Amino acid sequence: MEKAITVLPGDGIGPEVMKGTLRVLKAIESRFHHRFTVTEMPIGGNAIDETGNPLPPETIEQCKKSDAVLLGAVGGPKWDGMEQRPEQGLLRIRKELNVFANVRPVKAFGPLADIAPLKPALLENVDLVFVRELTGGIYFGQPKERKGSDEAVDTLYYHRKEIERVVKKAFVLAASRKKKLTSVDKANVLESSKLWREVVDETAKHYPDVKVEHMLVDNAAMQLVRNPAQFDVIVTENMFGDILSDEASMITGSLGMLASASLSEEGPGLYEPVHGSAPDIAGTNAANPLGMILSAAMMLRHSFHMNDEADAIELAVQEVLNANFRTGDISSNKDKVSTTDQVVEQLIYR
Amino acid sequence: MEKAITVLPGDGIGPEVMKGTLRVLKAIESRFHHRFTVTEMPIGGNAIDETGNPLPPETIEQCKKSDAVLLGAVGGPKWDGMEQRPEQGLLRIRKELNVFANVRPVKAFGPLADIAPLKPALLENVDLVFVRELTGGIYFGQPKERKGSDEAVDTLYYHRKEIERVVKKAFVLAASRKKKLTSVDKANVLESSKLWREVVDETAKHYPDVKVEHMLVDNAAMQLVRNPAQFDVIVTENMFGDILSDEASMITGSLGMLASASLSEEGPGLYEPVHGSAPDIAGTNAANPLGMILSAAMMLRHSFHMNDEADAIELAVQEVLNANFRTGDISSNKDKVSTTDQVVEQLIYR
Ligand SMILES: CC(C)[C@H](C(=O)O)[C@@H](O)C(=O)O
Ligand SMILES: CC(C)[C@H](C(=O)O)[C@@H](O)C(=O)O
Repeated sequence: MEKAITVLPGDGIGPEVMKGTLRVLKAIESRFHHRFTVTEMPIGGNAIDETGNPLPPETIEQCKKSDAVLLGAVGGPKWDGMEQRPEQGLLRIRKELNVFANVRPVKAFGPLADIAPLKPALLENVDLVFVRELTGGIYFGQPKERKGSDEAVDTLYYHRKEIERVVKKAFVLAASRKKKLTSVDKANVLESSKLWREVVDETAKHYPDVKVEHMLVDNAAMQLVRNPAQFDVIVTENMFGDILSDEASMITGSLGMLASASLSEEGPGLYEPVHGSAPDIAGTNAANPLGMILSAAMMLRHSFHMNDEADAIELAVQEVLNANFRTGDISSNKDKVSTTDQVVEQLIYR
Repeated sequence: MEKAITVLPGDGIGPEVMKGTLRVLKAIESRFHHRFTVTEMPIGGNAIDETGNPLPPETIEQCKKSDAVLLGAVGGPKWDGMEQRPEQGLLRIRKELNVFANVRPVKAFGPLADIAPLKPALLENVDLVFVRELTGGIYFGQPKERKGSDEAVDTLYYHRKEIERVVKKAFVLAASRKKKLTSVDKANVLESSKLWREVVDETAKHYPDVKVEHMLVDNAAMQLVRNPAQFDVIVTENMFGDILSDEASMITGSLGMLASASLSEEGPGLYEPVHGSAPDIAGTNAANPLGMILSAAMMLRHSFHMNDEADAIELAVQEVLNANFRTGDISSNKDKVSTTDQVVEQLIYR
């Protein structure tokens, strides 16, 4: 198959983990006889440096006409306090591509039990997926402004349609898995959560096989630590999804392991690791490339329907972890830390 | 000393844990020669049943003229879908008493390491305190409404003054402890967080001894699991504080262990456990009374300056845990579960 991929390496460790990921995709290309056309474009801090705009129009255009988009990470102290913020590039590309459903799988990797903060018994059978609403809520609601020097306001707004489409994606996903959906809200305080709950209950009627449960966000934050294996699919609004999915990353032992897919109704998907740009280790060949590489695997599966190819990558990741090649963030032994490049080598070799 | 305490048992397990707490306070009265005048008033679901109002004016009045207020818990499925919600009683009493600073200490209890989800090594030296803004933010901002059947909006609003007073309390607390303050926000997305960060930085100038750090809420949710011992005092806005403090309760092993003090500038403090009304076990003598009892200890310390008395209670709690008297929520052995009353007996006996 021929596929056009727009690649947005971004800032910090973004370019390093992207480089490794492209090597893995090259290996997939030759093993499975595909052709991936890769076009690199600026976003975030480097785009500000180059063009004064964290999301130049050319980047948007290129993304829109490709089959899928891979994104590294954006941001860093270099752009702190500037009027243009790298994160604006990220938020705007999500909006431009209308990728309203952010899918973040969280699985415990057996060999990493030694570095995970939770007791090993709690990690068994953890295999959950967040479906986070990504283009609405308090991230985008208006007004969102400073009034004079003394007041500030943000707006958590949802239209029923925005909730319906992401909740539907979550039900479809749950129906294809363990048929359990947990919807997280704060309906005892927020009006938007009451609407959210209504939409979930209405949608549930069309998926009688899926068991639905509502959970308050404070309780969910607790249950993810207490007993993460209770969850299958978790659907929630933008900000709660941001907080809870980062929290849950600790189940895998490191944010560096987590992949994500951001999906729209029709257009290209956006695939990015959950971790940030980690400016403190940027350029030192120390970043964990697995979150980015597993995001590319999600791209192969979701956007290109290349299941064998995605399986091959995921299996190779398991093997590399079994063989104990680990970057610093997931290493339990200071004397045996692999570099980004070494982990990529090992992966390609498998 | 003579002190007037208004007691709001509330719903679910509220009355049970309150009963046990009042017995402990009786024991303190006689051992230390104080006189506590206790007046019981309705709040939440039971107040709706009695008066149609989750916070009757008589309750407010009685609270305002007392030296401190003890609250059990409110809510339950009985009042689901009603127009009047028990939680409204809780939110309104906080507002009426202007208790803008909610102080929630989180300590690992040594004997409970067996039931805590985190690995024991991570629990050593955990001794942190949340200072959660409690009377502002998205809980109270206007508009907060449903527009027709398709749209809903909540408003996250802060005035500089609201931030200043709670941040100041957090600095004072940090200065009296390990001199480290972590301010949690989402300044890369929220305007209100940018104002929050400004106020923290300005206030910091008056407390040169306190080391200040800013942390994004998604990262904080992760760090609380990854390495909770890194924190001393954490200050944050209302909703983030709600989510993160419940998450952090897992460090102690159970929400049932956590106490809180809600403080105003001048008026009576409001003391309540962090747990909810647990309707599933209400009336079965199974609730953990320690969160409520430790909240009473906070009342003695903060509102009445009775440090020896508070110490006595906290020490007794340690001893009861050491002696392995535990309610179901913190028990590791199904064959040795104590009732609420048994735990209270053991405490009083010490
Ligand atoms: C960088 C930031 C704006 C972003 C978010 O909050 O969505 C990030 O935390 C994420 O989760 O992708
Ligand atoms: C019951 C609910 C409204 C309340 C809150 O969110 O403040 C509770 O979760 C708490 O933390 O005290």
